Amino acid sequence: MAITRRGLMLVLSSPSGAGKTTISRRLLDEERTLFMSVSATTRARRPGEVDGRDYFFVDPTEFNLMVNRGELLEHAKVFGNYYGTPRGPVEEALAAGRDVLFDIDWQGTQQLQDSAPRDLVSVFILPPSTRELERRLRARAQDSDEVVAARMAKAADEISHYPEYQYIILNDDIERSVAAVRSILAAERLKRERQVGLPDFVKGLREGSGDD
Amino acid sequence: MAITRRGLMLVLSSPSGAGKTTISRRLLDEERTLFMSVSATTRARRPGEVDGRDYFFVDPTEFNLMVNRGELLEHAKVFGNYYGTPRGPVEEALAAGRDVLFDIDWQGTQQLQDSAPRDLVSVFILPPSTRELERRLRARAQDSDEVVAARMAKAADEISHYPEYQYIILNDDIERSVAAVRSILAAERLKRERQVGLPDFVKGLREGSGDD
Repeated sequence: MAITRRGLMLVLSSPSGAGKTTISRRLLDEERTLFMSVSATTRARRPGEVDGRDYFFVDPTEFNLMVNRGELLEHAKVFGNYYGTPRGPVEEALAAGRDVLFDIDWQGTQQLQDSAPRDLVSVFILPPSTRELERRLRARAQDSDEVVAARMAKAADEISHYPEYQYIILNDDIERSVAAVRSILAAERLKRERQVGLPDFVKGLREGSGDD
Repeated sequence: MAITRRGLMLVLSSPSGAGKTTISRRLLDEERTLFMSVSATTRARRPGEVDGRDYFFVDPTEFNLMVNRGELLEHAKVFGNYYGTPRGPVEEALAAGRDVLFDIDWQGTQQLQDSAPRDLVSVFILPPSTRELERRLRARAQDSDEVVAARMAKAADEISHYPEYQYIILNDDIERSVAAVRSILAAERLKRERQVGLPDFVKGLREGSGDD
């Protein structure tokens, strides 16, 4: 016995080095109704990438048309290429009770907040300390101090946007952080407005038809 | 490492027979920062009851003064006696990061919603079916069909108030329902506004002081 529910849009944002990628992978493994959003992009397809799985590859004219038709929930230009989230597949997933995971920054999150405020669940992941963040950024590659300093400055800028998010997780333990996001998913699925089958269920309950 | 947080007020409501009492007991056992709210009442103390633990026992004049001074978060008259929730102990608990559990009906919940909307987390528990609800109400005692019918009517009236709650749990399995409320608690504790220590923590993070 389950009450029909509408899916939700889960946004995870964080400065790089805060552990977001690991948490996302774990969530996609463990949550069977959660799927990664597939973006449209104007950048060239790389070897091994599959159209419709990794990205929807479109040319700049087509991308521009999608923007003008209001078909993108959010979009941005990154290093000269355009990226955006097509509305159709997300809307389909939500209507079928599936949840969609977004790996986007604070600017994308603000756009989702404007275009789909009721479906959005936004989570910001903080590193436990500056020292730990620096350690993780350094561990990624043998980068110069200058590169690391630039990344730290970018991280500080991203962190300044935490007040725009609904939930904040301090990632000092990956297991605890995964459990925390899973609690947020479990709770948000129990929100009255997402349980779209409730009126019918309660009607049955009050009329004594019940279901057992 | 933990960020200071403000406690929350957890309201569980349901028609009698939906399993609320069992769920409440389990939560109080398993959640070490959760405490039952102690009500003030004008009804006489019964053998074994301890003032300040089971209730704050007050006379009608004192109760009336508490109402007039705005010292009660909610109050109601039940079978000729007055009951109410003193604001002071709840406010103290919340400020210390402790959570307070309330076992009140939809009318009390509406009053809490008015007096403390930001601290309130409201959960309505539904029985899985009319047949199951009737079975549970009958199991309680050897009551006449009339008494059971009156209880069923009261349950139906209470259920009609589910749209006033934030979260809805269908209690068809006690373990799952306890886990569901615990997820709600875990998630609500991660809400940005409840993590009152965040601005200081992030300030430290951005200034590079971190804590490790």
